[in-house]
Amino acid sequence: MAGTERIRRVANIVRRQQAAGHEVAVVVSAMAGETDRLVGFCREANPLYDPAEYDVVVSSGEQVTAGLLALTLQGMGCKARSWLGWQLPIQTDDAHAKARIEEIDSDAVLASMAKGEIAVFPGFQGIGHDGRVTTLGRGGSDTSAVAVAAAVKADRCDIYTDVDGVYTTDPRIVAKARKLTHVTYEEMLELASVGSKVLQTRSVSLAMKENVRVQVLSSFVDEDAPLADDLPGTMIVGDDELAQIQEDLDMERQMITGIAADKNEAKVILTRVPDRPGAVATIFTPLADASINVDMIIQNVGREKGETDVTFTVPAADLARTQALLEEHKGTIGFNRIITDGKVAKISVVGVGMRSHAGVAAAMFKAMADRGINIQAISTSEIKVSVLIDEDETELAVRVLHSAYGLDSSDEAA
Amino acid sequence: MAGTERIRRVANIVRRQQAAGHEVAVVVSAMAGETDRLVGFCREANPLYDPAEYDVVVSSGEQVTAGLLALTLQGMGCKARSWLGWQLPIQTDDAHAKARIEEIDSDAVLASMAKGEIAVFPGFQGIGHDGRVTTLGRGGSDTSAVAVAAAVKADRCDIYTDVDGVYTTDPRIVAKARKLTHVTYEEMLELASVGSKVLQTRSVSLAMKENVRVQVLSSFVDEDAPLADDLPGTMIVGDDELAQIQEDLDMERQMITGIAADKNEAKVILTRVPDRPGAVATIFTPLADASINVDMIIQNVGREKGETDVTFTVPAADLARTQALLEEHKGTIGFNRIITDGKVAKISVVGVGMRSHAGVAAAMFKAMADRGINIQAISTSEIKVSVLIDEDETELAVRVLHSAYGLDSSDEAA
Repeated sequence: MAGTERIRRVANIVRRQQAAGHEVAVVVSAMAGETDRLVGFCREANPLYDPAEYDVVVSSGEQVTAGLLALTLQGMGCKARSWLGWQLPIQTDDAHAKARIEEIDSDAVLASMAKGEIAVFPGFQGIGHDGRVTTLGRGGSDTSAVAVAAAVKADRCDIYTDVDGVYTTDPRIVAKARKLTHVTYEEMLELASVGSKVLQTRSVSLAMKENVRVQVLSSFVDEDAPLADDLPGTMIVGDDELAQIQEDLDMERQMITGIAADKNEAKVILTRVPDRPGAVATIFTPLADASINVDMIIQNVGREKGETDVTFTVPAADLARTQALLEEHKGTIGFNRIITDGKVAKISVVGVGMRSHAGVAAAMFKAMADRGINIQAISTSEIKVSVLIDEDETELAVRVLHSAYGLDSSDEAA
Repeated sequence: MAGTERIRRVANIVRRQQAAGHEVAVVVSAMAGETDRLVGFCREANPLYDPAEYDVVVSSGEQVTAGLLALTLQGMGCKARSWLGWQLPIQTDDAHAKARIEEIDSDAVLASMAKGEIAVFPGFQGIGHDGRVTTLGRGGSDTSAVAVAAAVKADRCDIYTDVDGVYTTDPRIVAKARKLTHVTYEEMLELASVGSKVLQTRSVSLAMKENVRVQVLSSFVDEDAPLADDLPGTMIVGDDELAQIQEDLDMERQMITGIAADKNEAKVILTRVPDRPGAVATIFTPLADASINVDMIIQNVGREKGETDVTFTVPAADLARTQALLEEHKGTIGFNRIITDGKVAKISVVGVGMRSHAGVAAAMFKAMADRGINIQAISTSEIKVSVLIDEDETELAVRVLHSAYGLDSSDEAA
């Protein structure tokens, strides 16, 4: 949210939703720049800040927006009231600055909504078992929205974001990318975790767990534009609902739903690791202990008898820490050299349709080979195939695959 | 409080107080300009704002300072934690935006302080019986400080303000004004309510009721200056403690403690009001109903038989409303003309010493008459004599009285 003008625009959308017959609960984020300002204050006060006090400071941003949105709605003649995290309460664990929602007591809110009051919640905040304010970590307002939607048993959770929906791939790379009308939770998770930063991953996991229908919409729409009911963004739903929709529309399921690219990975190769039981554990245990998230792992056949090369990827931001940890454990692991490469990209094709279609991976490898793109590593899951390639070939690979899987729209995307 | 630099200075004072052996609880106000910013947002959102939502928004200012002060203290190696109004709780009534503190549950705070933790409270806020955030009205942080001091049974409540203490009169008017080492609660109330805007009147009333010793100090002192214990401002205490101090120091009680001037009054004269029982009630009932605070009232002997002139004062800000109300009730009251004068000042001499000294008022009238200052109205209380004069003679009158009662210091005040 930006300033009070932006709040007025949001209020207008909410008012129109209520006028259209909906009971409405709204979860708000802080005004633009506000969270950064508050985090800056905390850093100035104490660079090694206590997360419990950090939460007291930064949660105020959403608190302010919630009060102002309630005031603005009242000014438009609606009944509205704010509900702070500790008032419901929105119960979280005690992990300050990165808390997880455990339970929301919605009785009071439901009673209020039944009286025609619009319920306004500050996102991103809750209360711990210690009785103190908690926050859910950056981007936590998406998760709050889904949790509140589940608690009030909402028909739908509309999340207004920087984009107007989920696309088959990044429209900045492929002009013919199409906006998807529907994706499943699992597809969204795979697309999000490999770089389509539309929603926080945790919010999608929670929506899947609680079976909340989530709609991704643009927050930049004109306030007089058709309502979200009539002009949908992308609806995130369960497998069953998607299957039903496709049956109703007599559509055939596409094999691939979307293609994601992620340049934030780095490749690490350890050469000449002893090829004996437990060797791999000596590599990855110290990294796990340091909360470094290892993604793809490939163990090559060793050139020397009794030795093997091990390749894996880590987030680029953790590369330096990874190297230091591996050097520290060099004696235990027993490798020869560390070779690193930060100039790699992970390209993933995602789709629940691949469960029932063979040959997705083969089609991928062939399309890339035809254009001379070298694949450095491969990993697969039930609904995803990912390959690691040279970062410079990212855009080329995405365009080639988008065409190969028949995702290009006939019209260029806006 | 200004920005984080100001918070660091406050933290330094607190840290040194703790190092000197005190258990410390701190009540903070919002950072400079923050409350105005938040109030501005509320007005933009809805000019006729709901005070309950207004409280949600504006209370965030103190919440931020409290978290930041706790963080800053921790950065200095102190144990510290913040306690929001709803956490103790600081129980108030439900009069949002102007709530009154009813009770503070201090058990948890006392346990925390006993462990060596500095307790940091956002001032100005509490929680109503409706379970929602309340604020105490502008300047409410003084009242919060006194209430917290009472709840934790503090030896002393130091309030850091824009001034370094309470003076015999405004040092900008009388260069020879002296800083008082002690005043009583009642004197402070009279001085505050007639224009010495050092502390909020409510905070002094509460201190008197709860018997909290309050010290007024400058918040602009150098953080390395001697501590408040050694370099006192003005201590506000009960009659008994003051008497004991004076006995200990073998001091004689001054007849007059201080002189206050208030230019925010306006005079109203109603001419030829019928001189019959109940006539005065017809004047003041409508004003009371409109919450207009009538101060001095003088009924002059009528020039015509059966008629009288009635003179009184109201806050200058309420003069227009007062005139309109009187015109509206002209038929019932039955006066001839309204004469108003906004260019008046009320000069008050205040001191518990006048209880045991006769002739205070006589000395006042004589001193003023000697300088040709005309007295338009007089009112008295047990420890105060006030007169209404021409506003242009305010400074002259204050200087004349300051000398007449022997209050001038031998050194000029800083």
